[in-house]
Order: sequence, then structure tokens, then C-alpha cells
Amino acid sequence: MNAELTFLFIIEVIGTIAFAISGIRMAAAKHFDWFGAYTVGLVTAIGGGTLRDILLGIPVFWMQTWWYLAVTGLSLFIVIAFKKILVKTQILFIFDTIGLGLFVVIGIQKTIAADYPFWVAVIMGVITGALGGVIRDILVNNEPLLFQKDIYATACFAGGIVYWIMSLTGASQLAQGLACAAVVILIRILAVRFSWSLPVLNQNE
Amino acid sequence: MNAELTFLFIIEVIGTIAFAISGIRMAAAKHFDWFGAYTVGLVTAIGGGTLRDILLGIPVFWMQTWWYLAVTGLSLFIVIAFKKILVKTQILFIFDTIGLGLFVVIGIQKTIAADYPFWVAVIMGVITGALGGVIRDILVNNEPLLFQKDIYATACFAGGIVYWIMSLTGASQLAQGLACAAVVILIRILAVRFSWSLPVLNQNE
Amino acid sequence: MNAELTFLFIIEVIGTIAFAISGIRMAAAKHFDWFGAYTVGLVTAIGGGTLRDILLGIPVFWMQTWWYLAVTGLSLFIVIAFKKILVKTQILFIFDTIGLGLFVVIGIQKTIAADYPFWVAVIMGVITGALGGVIRDILVNNEPLLFQKDIYATACFAGGIVYWIMSLTGASQLAQGLACAAVVILIRILAVRFSWSLPVLNQNE
Repeated sequence: MNAELTFLFIIEVIGTIAFAISGIRMAAAKHFDWFGAYTVGLVTAIGGGTLRDILLGIPVFWMQTWWYLAVTGLSLFIVIAFKKILVKTQILFIFDTIGLGLFVVIGIQKTIAADYPFWVAVIMGVITGALGGVIRDILVNNEPLLFQKDIYATACFAGGIVYWIMSLTGASQLAQGLACAAVVILIRILAVRFSWSLPVLNQNE
Repeated sequence: MNAELTFLFIIEVIGTIAFAISGIRMAAAKHFDWFGAYTVGLVTAIGGGTLRDILLGIPVFWMQTWWYLAVTGLSLFIVIAFKKILVKTQILFIFDTIGLGLFVVIGIQKTIAADYPFWVAVIMGVITGALGGVIRDILVNNEPLLFQKDIYATACFAGGIVYWIMSLTGASQLAQGLACAAVVILIRILAVRFSWSLPVLNQNE
Repeated sequence: MNAELTFLFIIEVIGTIAFAISGIRMAAAKHFDWFGAYTVGLVTAIGGGTLRDILLGIPVFWMQTWWYLAVTGLSLFIVIAFKKILVKTQILFIFDTIGLGLFVVIGIQKTIAADYPFWVAVIMGVITGALGGVIRDILVNNEPLLFQKDIYATACFAGGIVYWIMSLTGASQLAQGLACAAVVILIRILAVRFSWSLPVLNQNE
């Protein structure tokens, strides 16, 4: 169990770094200063979980330990030191996708632990995974990418549904979480590779 | 009493649909996909009440029952199936205005029930009625319409004041609510018909 | 002690007016109506403290007394009546800077009183001082100035660190608060006078 918790912790750190870096790089593209870039990175990484905790009425997770702030600082350092490597490789996409899968699982588990029904947990999984990016886009004054490209939030939603179905089969919590994360990651990768997208609403107005 | 509650419930459903549709149609005009349009519709319908419940420190209303999510799904279906009828008729404006009136009443009643003074209740009435539209405009990256056209929020405010005055006269809660909703609806309709608007601040800068 | 509380109260009123006026004037520049300008002014003045109170899980400060609403109304009157004086003099900048210093102190003291560690208090100081301006910029659909010009939030952060250091020396709470506010005010004034700014992140993308 200890090894499992350590594993989850490492994945959450990697996911947080990936989310923070995506915010920092978007802020850099808009010529924000270091402080602004750090702030956008932090909000991207913790924004979804913060709204989840406020809605659930539980203590806000990043106020319990300083390491989310430290990890965001590390992310800023990585962006400054390794920008050429980051731009050229796919490594950020891979981290971001793994982090997304785990963030959805965390959101669902916290909601179930707070005694909410499963349909609320699915929504909290989507919020935990996808809202940070929406706040990031609002802060840099872009139209939220979430609502226009790829199927980021849809992948979170599908993962949540799989978690729900698995819970009905009596599978262990670990198996439920792994299946959920696997579905989120798989759909996200396939969607980007094959340019999947949801149909656009046409209203001619 | 049972008939009265059923009546209020039906009006709230209609108001929720009208609010959700206004969000979905604005998302469609910006070429969002279905998921994005659903999300914008949902946030338009529940955003005001969500902030109200967070500020009051009471359980968030839409997490207690799944029907707000279902009604938003119905709204998406309506937009896709009946878009020509929606564009041509005034029916949306009528629903939206009735819903606005009731949302203000709900916001005031919940605040009073949570033992806050009346001036807080008036603000919560305005937030419940008008904030969903502000979040909608931010999500689709428009300047909030609330602050530029018609007197949407002002109608909510006037309704809240009338509710307050009625409460001082010892009228029944039903009478207070009806008078409040009637004022909101009347002012909104008159404002649109006669192009009322508040004076613009001129600062030449 | 009574004189000290009265002094703090007067400074908080002045800070609230300065923050509200900055919101109202930005709304006026975008041709908002009076109601919209009042709302933007109110949110600028109370937005940071509201998020702080929600995150800390304590009652929201402006719902305990109506005077924040009244003071914002006074601010609107000041903007309408004295716009020429406001545009020409530096008085607004001075009020705004003094208010900023005190808002940071209030945010830190409330967080410590709610039994959070000091690194959370520093963040809450920054949020109390700087977030209102970010929400103001989002509402009028500007890119948040915070992230682009001067070192507004950085001054708050530096003040928070000084408060923290002072608390380790066993200085009185009053001395801690005065040192913190002085640092915020000094850095802000020096930054504007000498055009200090943080380095911009360059990412060529």
C-alpha cells in the first residue's frame, strides 16, 4: 500500500508539473512577466481541484501542504532552462495526458469519500481535470480551448463513466481508478492522433 | 400547498431551460462543439445559484438532484431540433423573463431562510438572476452584456426592493414572491419594449 | 486600542474607495452604465477578500455589514462629481497604494486568526490585495494588467514576506502590520517612479 501511495504521489507531481508548464508557456506567449507566468501556471495546476473542494465543502487541498507551490516554482525553472527541448518533443503532451487521467481519478475519489452520489463524482472528475485549463484561458484572455478543440473534457467524462460502471461490478478501488485513468489517457491520445472532434453546433446567426 | 410547490417547480424548470438555451445559442454562434455548448448552457443556468450558495455557506443546490443536468440536456436537444422556431419567435424572451423573475425570488427566499439580513437577500436575488449570464459572456469571451444593454440586473434589483417592502407590510411569503417576480418581469418587458437603459458613465479618457 | 481600531477602519474605508474608483473608472472607459460601473467597482473592492474568505472557509466579510456597499456608492458619486480633479491629480494613486498595503495586512491577519500556517497567509495577503483588480480586468474584458505592468502583486508578496520575518522576531502584531504595509507602499511607489518591472518570459513561439 505504501508503494502504491508513493506511486500515486509521483504521478500527481508529474501531472501538476505538466499542467503548470502548460499555463506558464501560454503566459510566456503573451509576454507576461515571471510573477504572472508563475501565477497562471499555479492556477492552471490547482484551479480545478480548488473549485471541486469549494463545491464539496471540504478543505482546499493545496492549503494543506506547500508542495504544490514548490512544484509550480520547479515548473517555472524547467520552462526557463529547457525551453528548446520542451518545444521540440512530445514529452509535455505525454505528462499532461497522464496527469489528466490521475486528476480525474482524484476528483472522483474525493467526491465519493465526501458521501456524494456518483453522478456528482463524475462532474467533479471533469472539473478537476479540465477547469484549470479554462481558468488559464480566461486569465490570458483567450477563448477557452476546451470548448473548441480536441476532446479534452470529453475524455474526462468518459473516464468518469467507466469508473462508475467499474464500481457497479464490485471491482477494487485501485482497479476502478486504473481503468478510469487508462480510458482518459487512451481517448486523449487517440483523439489527438486521429484528429477526433465533437460536432460543432450550427445555428447560422 | 402541494399544488403551489408543483407550480413553482414547473416555473423553475422553464426558467432553467430558458437560461440554458440562451447559453447554448451563444456558444453555437461561436462554433463551440456540443460538449462546450452543453457546458456553457449549464453554467448559464446554474452559475448564479452556485455562487449564491457558496457565499451563503449552504449546500450547492444542483448537487442535491440530477434534474438540472437533465434539463440542460433537454435544452441542448431543443436548440438542435427547433432552431428555426426559436430564432423567429419571442417565446425564448418570455421564458427567460419568467425564469428571471422566479430565480430572483428563489435567491431571496434561500438567503432569508439562512438567517441573513434583507439587504444581503436583495444582492443574492440579483446574483441568482443575473450572474449566470455574466459567466456565460466571460466563457465565450464577450464583454458582459449585463453591463451594457437593457436593464436586466436592474430589474432584479427593483424586484428585490419590492420583496423587501412587501415583507415590512406583513404580507404572506407567497404575496411577497409574486409581487417581486411581477416587478422583475414587468420592468424587463417594458425596458425591452421602450428601449429603456441606464445612463452611461462619461469620463472622456 | 480604540483609537487604533478607528484608524484602521478609516484606512480600510479609504482603500475600499480607491479600489472601487479604479473599477468604476475602467468601466466608464468602456461605456458601461451606472449599474455596471457600480458592480465593477464593488467587485474590484471586495473581490479579493471574498475569494480569501471562501478559501479559508470563514464568513464572507462584506455580508456582515452593509457599509462596503455604501462606500462603493459613495465612490460612484465621487467619480461623477469630481472626475476632472481625479484625472489630473495623483491622489488616486496614493489612496490606492495605501489601501493596497492595508488590504495585504488584513488578509494576513485573518488567515493567521483562522489557524493557517504563514505561507498560506502570505498567499491570502496577495489575493486580498491583488485579485480584485484581476476580476475587474476580466469583467471589462481586458488582459489582466496585474500580469503585464508594474509590480503590484510582487509588492504584496514582498510585504507578506516582511510580515512573516517580523513575526519570527517576536515583534508586536501592530509592528508586523506596519512594517508589512510600509514595504508594500514603498515598493509600489518606487516601482512606479523608477519604472521597475519583472523580466518578461521569452519563449519565441
